[in-house]
Amino acid sequence: MIEDKNQQRTNLSELGEFGLIKHLTKNFEINQPSTFKGIGDDAAVLDFKDKKAVISTDLLIEGVHFDLAYMPLKHLGYKSVVVNLSDIYAMNAKPTQITVSVAVSNRFPLEALEELFDGITLAAKEYTIDVIGGDTTSSQKGLIISITAIGEAEESELVYRNGAKSNDLLVVTGDIGSAYMGLQVLEREKQVFQVNPNNQPDLDAYTYIIERQLKPEARKDIRTLLHALEVKPTSMIDISDGLSSEIIHICKQSEVGCNLYEDKLPLDPQLINVCEEFNIDSTTVAINGGEDYELLFTISMDDYDKIKGNPNFTVIGHMTPESEGIHLVTRANTKIPLKARGWNALNG
Amino acid sequence: MIEDKNQQRTNLSELGEFGLIKHLTKNFEINQPSTFKGIGDDAAVLDFKDKKAVISTDLLIEGVHFDLAYMPLKHLGYKSVVVNLSDIYAMNAKPTQITVSVAVSNRFPLEALEELFDGITLAAKEYTIDVIGGDTTSSQKGLIISITAIGEAEESELVYRNGAKSNDLLVVTGDIGSAYMGLQVLEREKQVFQVNPNNQPDLDAYTYIIERQLKPEARKDIRTLLHALEVKPTSMIDISDGLSSEIIHICKQSEVGCNLYEDKLPLDPQLINVCEEFNIDSTTVAINGGEDYELLFTISMDDYDKIKGNPNFTVIGHMTPESEGIHLVTRANTKIPLKARGWNALNG
Repeated sequence: MIEDKNQQRTNLSELGEFGLIKHLTKNFEINQPSTFKGIGDDAAVLDFKDKKAVISTDLLIEGVHFDLAYMPLKHLGYKSVVVNLSDIYAMNAKPTQITVSVAVSNRFPLEALEELFDGITLAAKEYTIDVIGGDTTSSQKGLIISITAIGEAEESELVYRNGAKSNDLLVVTGDIGSAYMGLQVLEREKQVFQVNPNNQPDLDAYTYIIERQLKPEARKDIRTLLHALEVKPTSMIDISDGLSSEIIHICKQSEVGCNLYEDKLPLDPQLINVCEEFNIDSTTVAINGGEDYELLFTISMDDYDKIKGNPNFTVIGHMTPESEGIHLVTRANTKIPLKARGWNALNG
Repeated sequence: MIEDKNQQRTNLSELGEFGLIKHLTKNFEINQPSTFKGIGDDAAVLDFKDKKAVISTDLLIEGVHFDLAYMPLKHLGYKSVVVNLSDIYAMNAKPTQITVSVAVSNRFPLEALEELFDGITLAAKEYTIDVIGGDTTSSQKGLIISITAIGEAEESELVYRNGAKSNDLLVVTGDIGSAYMGLQVLEREKQVFQVNPNNQPDLDAYTYIIERQLKPEARKDIRTLLHALEVKPTSMIDISDGLSSEIIHICKQSEVGCNLYEDKLPLDPQLINVCEEFNIDSTTVAINGGEDYELLFTISMDDYDKIKGNPNFTVIGHMTPESEGIHLVTRANTKIPLKARGWNALNG
């Protein structure tokens, strides 16, 4: 499979904790004006001046959130950062710094950690954020990654989950469901590999959906784009747990209902093909599959003309009074109540 | 032993992730003016106005950083917070917020997590900080706690590790070494318990040193005290990894040397007794034992009169030109080079 076989193995204990941190963080640059002091003291020092600071944190556990059988460590490092930045973009803020804590069992050589940090460094460059601190320690089992992301925004720019109003349009960026089906393909290949380790998988037909799973990007462009279009969403959230779950978050916090239209869901053609191959309903995947890291937001009907025809945005529904509930309107025009985390429920 | 036997066991899956977070965070209050928006969105929003923000993070792993055989979960929650706040105080800043991420295996019932969060809530109250975010997930093995602490300070108040000058006095708060020996006592009792589970340990002679290990406090008073005395340290660090290790950090970053005086080390009488009982050299313990969470700082000789006789402070040495190196001056007036993490080395 895609697993990388390291030739060289340097035992982590050869460097010691301080040597290890120094070695792993040597490529980190400071670029953000708000980073007053980075790695190297008891704490980093940040200066946001008149801006608000936003902060979000995620804990990723091997065997729960990722499987190193098909997730190369460099991709994992990259994705761990992206997942956190997505939360900052979902506030309509600009990410500026992260802290990175890593715990590893002694089965990981230095070279493995270097790969992980290569991915982290690449993401930090790509998104122009500073790595300002962290912690490196040993674990009893597996790899554990904890990242805290920090960002900044003017107060007037911030968008919360609770501002959606009845009649607002529900908009999603990009396409959805692909990350989930990418995972299904990788899981299937893992099974094949376990039966026959010499099997060379042909993954050409799955490149897009696999990339959505292994190397997702956060939508850093949307903040700039919305600003240029002079659209401020009334609410916003990122799609990490699946569309239905995130719609319900917005509805509950904004005290509104929602009609989501099945025929409007933006699906990549590759996703549709793979769903047919797996004999899975693509709507179910699009609604309940997670990890797309697209942004879901609501805008006033008055702003519709500003986003109409923009290939980054798809209007997938509209908000209703809370009393009308939260529904999926199917192609056959029947209304089904939308449930959170419905993947297992729908298939169980 | 001190282990708490829970009668009730509620399986975590009964609540689901969102229900669990809601349940565990329901007692958290917002008290800090800089907390603009706490738990409940993609990210928390903070407003430090003209102050600098400081940020520090720690990852605590069961079996590496703590042992639930003698660490009650409520104490663990409390200590996890304190450990992080100590880093903020070491910048001469005031802690204001934390994020808390927790991963648990399915052997933990809800009641265990409630105890952990009771300790976290207690620490948040005691130190007047807001819990503004976090993550709750499952682990493959054991309990994992990741805390990020945030604080604020005027730029002029901040104290770094790199400001010590030759001739500055080296000062430590409180006493040192007790947390380490508290751990040795607990480890010994654990062995006894494994041989005879009905043995009731008599720990009266060890209350102080055990409390230093199980329920340490961060020195929130020092910032206020130094301010009142009109003393600004030239450098500061907290003692988490042991005195020698922290002295070396200050020396390296400040490019100075140091003479540390054995006869000045502040040791609690209980610590001295226990060291005798264990037949361990108390100086070795004081220098290399970690987890005291006291503050170590340097001040200009001119400020000596301001701190002289204050029971919170002990002058334990002075800084020298870098070329003179870093030494322990023994009671017999011989100079021994100070080594970091010397515990094993000294006894090996």
